[in-house]
Amino acid sequence: MFRKRSAPHGEIGHRDTARLEAFSDGVFAIAITLLILEIRVPTVDQVEGETSLWRALIELWPSYFGYLISFLVIGMMWINHHNVFKFLVGVDQWLLTINLALLLCISFIPFPTALLAEHITHPDERTAAALYAAVFFVTALVFYALWRYPTRRAPWLLVPDADPKAIAAITRRFSYGPPAYLAAAIISWISPTVGLVALAVISLLYLAPALLGDPVEPSPD
Amino acid sequence: MFRKRSAPHGEIGHRDTARLEAFSDGVFAIAITLLILEIRVPTVDQVEGETSLWRALIELWPSYFGYLISFLVIGMMWINHHNVFKFLVGVDQWLLTINLALLLCISFIPFPTALLAEHITHPDERTAAALYAAVFFVTALVFYALWRYPTRRAPWLLVPDADPKAIAAITRRFSYGPPAYLAAAIISWISPTVGLVALAVISLLYLAPALLGDPVEPSPD
Amino acid sequence: MFRKRSAPHGEIGHRDTARLEAFSDGVFAIAITLLILEIRVPTVDQVEGETSLWRALIELWPSYFGYLISFLVIGMMWINHHNVFKFLVGVDQWLLTINLALLLCISFIPFPTALLAEHITHPDERTAAALYAAVFFVTALVFYALWRYPTRRAPWLLVPDADPKAIAAITRRFSYGPPAYLAAAIISWISPTVGLVALAVISLLYLAPALLGDPVEPSPD
Amino acid sequence: MFRKRSAPHGEIGHRDTARLEAFSDGVFAIAITLLILEIRVPTVDQVEGETSLWRALIELWPSYFGYLISFLVIGMMWINHHNVFKFLVGVDQWLLTINLALLLCISFIPFPTALLAEHITHPDERTAAALYAAVFFVTALVFYALWRYPTRRAPWLLVPDADPKAIAAITRRFSYGPPAYLAAAIISWISPTVGLVALAVISLLYLAPALLGDPVEPSPD
Repeated sequence: MFRKRSAPHGEIGHRDTARLEAFSDGVFAIAITLLILEIRVPTVDQVEGETSLWRALIELWPSYFGYLISFLVIGMMWINHHNVFKFLVGVDQWLLTINLALLLCISFIPFPTALLAEHITHPDERTAAALYAAVFFVTALVFYALWRYPTRRAPWLLVPDADPKAIAAITRRFSYGPPAYLAAAIISWISPTVGLVALAVISLLYLAPALLGDPVEPSPD
Repeated sequence: MFRKRSAPHGEIGHRDTARLEAFSDGVFAIAITLLILEIRVPTVDQVEGETSLWRALIELWPSYFGYLISFLVIGMMWINHHNVFKFLVGVDQWLLTINLALLLCISFIPFPTALLAEHITHPDERTAAALYAAVFFVTALVFYALWRYPTRRAPWLLVPDADPKAIAAITRRFSYGPPAYLAAAIISWISPTVGLVALAVISLLYLAPALLGDPVEPSPD
Repeated sequence: MFRKRSAPHGEIGHRDTARLEAFSDGVFAIAITLLILEIRVPTVDQVEGETSLWRALIELWPSYFGYLISFLVIGMMWINHHNVFKFLVGVDQWLLTINLALLLCISFIPFPTALLAEHITHPDERTAAALYAAVFFVTALVFYALWRYPTRRAPWLLVPDADPKAIAAITRRFSYGPPAYLAAAIISWISPTVGLVALAVISLLYLAPALLGDPVEPSPD
Repeated sequence: MFRKRSAPHGEIGHRDTARLEAFSDGVFAIAITLLILEIRVPTVDQVEGETSLWRALIELWPSYFGYLISFLVIGMMWINHHNVFKFLVGVDQWLLTINLALLLCISFIPFPTALLAEHITHPDERTAAALYAAVFFVTALVFYALWRYPTRRAPWLLVPDADPKAIAAITRRFSYGPPAYLAAAIISWISPTVGLVALAVISLLYLAPALLGDPVEPSPD
């Protein structure tokens, strides 16, 4: 395992975090781009007959909606993943494992997204919406662990002069994620529409905290 | 947020732009490569009977055409994205958000591409072609914002010695994009064929400006 | 071919391993993310009638199970690939070729995974499970070659001060992989359930050796 | 355009080639990994009845064969792309454009691969095999242009001390590619089996020239 005391062969610690970031970026980028494959193009046969292409495209709105929320969530998680790694100078097996669990969640997202798009406005929409939000709840939990492990249990993985106040501020921010997504999942079970709007709002808040005067990227100096 | 005054821990600013570029490159690369999945291979059953494989492949021309234009547009946008980032030394939350909106557009492109390939030469071809061009119009708008935000509103994100004349030249170039794609969308609504040719021409002009004597990559010195 | 004596143009050796790692990371990241595409979403038509969405989702358990094991294996192989490359300062044509063979195995994994998910609990489940495990056996063999070639046949590709004891420890660890996966394949042929559990256990052991007190990443100093 | 005389802002030339390599690597990695999606898993319904899963899997041999050859070709092209870029210190708009054309070819490969797998052993197999080989012919032509442009027309993009003899040796090697693949295409039209074996042999020769005593990676010093 890496200790900050030892940096054999020049920059092994830096190469480790760099390669883990690159791999994670790959998974984030692929998951976010695969989402589009779940939106099925209306065929000529479907459109011929009474309906028009416009109407067929409008009827696909659940697909666009799920696409948009999932894109937001994955994009927002990528940005925050990037913020977490700014504080790290090395990785160990535990961090690798937590990060892998996070990537498992991220790469799973296209499935509940397609499930939501298929079942919204149909009898099982509450199930689909609640499961969709629940996946984000689990993802937020794993994300929280990714931040807590180095900051609380493995401080030798942190940049040497990380500001404790900045770390505490981020910990607070990230700690809101799991309960917020859990609430969205419960609301989705009661009213899918309200729950999905809540999901979108939570994700936008994490995406653009600067707009709210919240310190976004407390620089570690 | 990043200010050029502070570069704690060595190269955080550089790592930020590098990682954003890498993530964006990932999305561009995946979107450009996924396009091929939308071209369906003629099956043995379809070909057996009266037609031949040659004929079946030729009848797929709308798919090749859409594939080619979308490839050109994504490739051209990638090159220009690369040119934009040469002027940046850091990123802030706004730039991240605009860039995410651009990636949303880019990763959406396979959908209108498949829509175009499915409906061209069918009754709804005008709708499909106009929507296809309209997606590029929106993408060009977001791209323009990606350039205008750092150059006009957040100059501390720029390389310190960026040449104002080079910036003005690029601004001019990029400002032609949105109206040109909007015109292509309107033309596509009237005549899909003419509109699609216009799309291809616009994209080629942005791809190979060097051929026209236009300064392509004004180096910032 | 690269010798450590010559590093023309600054860092060619380092760029080589860096680019090979980046390409490999890309293939690992894509293969691990494509797995989700193999899980088919239950449609509204399937669910309407007597069954519920919950039941339909629960009946997909073989898909989740295959997804999870394949994710584990690819993730674990990625981490170990990363550990192998920490010992390398250069690559030659043989290493490139062995690495390409490994990537062939990794990118093939979505196929047996889908095969397993389709056939488990059906008459041919023993065939599907044994083939699934056999693919991991072959992958482990190639992985072993990737480690043995530089450490035994091409030591000039290794970091100059690599610790022979660390290398011997990793060699021992990696040498258990092929027989373990072969055993899992044979067991799968007799009892798919036991075999798949064995597969999961082997992969977890390689993923989290730190938990067992085994030295995970013997640093080469 | 970049000249080697000017390297403003530190390493812009290096960053350019690095980012182009990274983007290209992404497309190569995705194309090579997407190939597997074209192999359709035999379903339980197909297998039930008279045939067994083993037989169904064996009948998929054209898919495996196409998968393997395409994997070899893309992998081999990636390695050679890597060798080309070792000679470059910068890129200009022409090189970007030629490289984009190469990526267009690479990302197109999954389509003729699926076409081959579908039609081999069926009436149109000669057409499918000849087209498959023809795509590699075009790819080899573009690849040759990617090498010739900097070495002949834009020497300022080359590493300053590139050895003319090494360049001449590579030029010779690469010049065999287009005629060899053209011959394979013509042979495929006459006899698909012989043509496909020729394709595999050509690609293996380019992949493992070291085995034949041919200097693989003439280092530029």
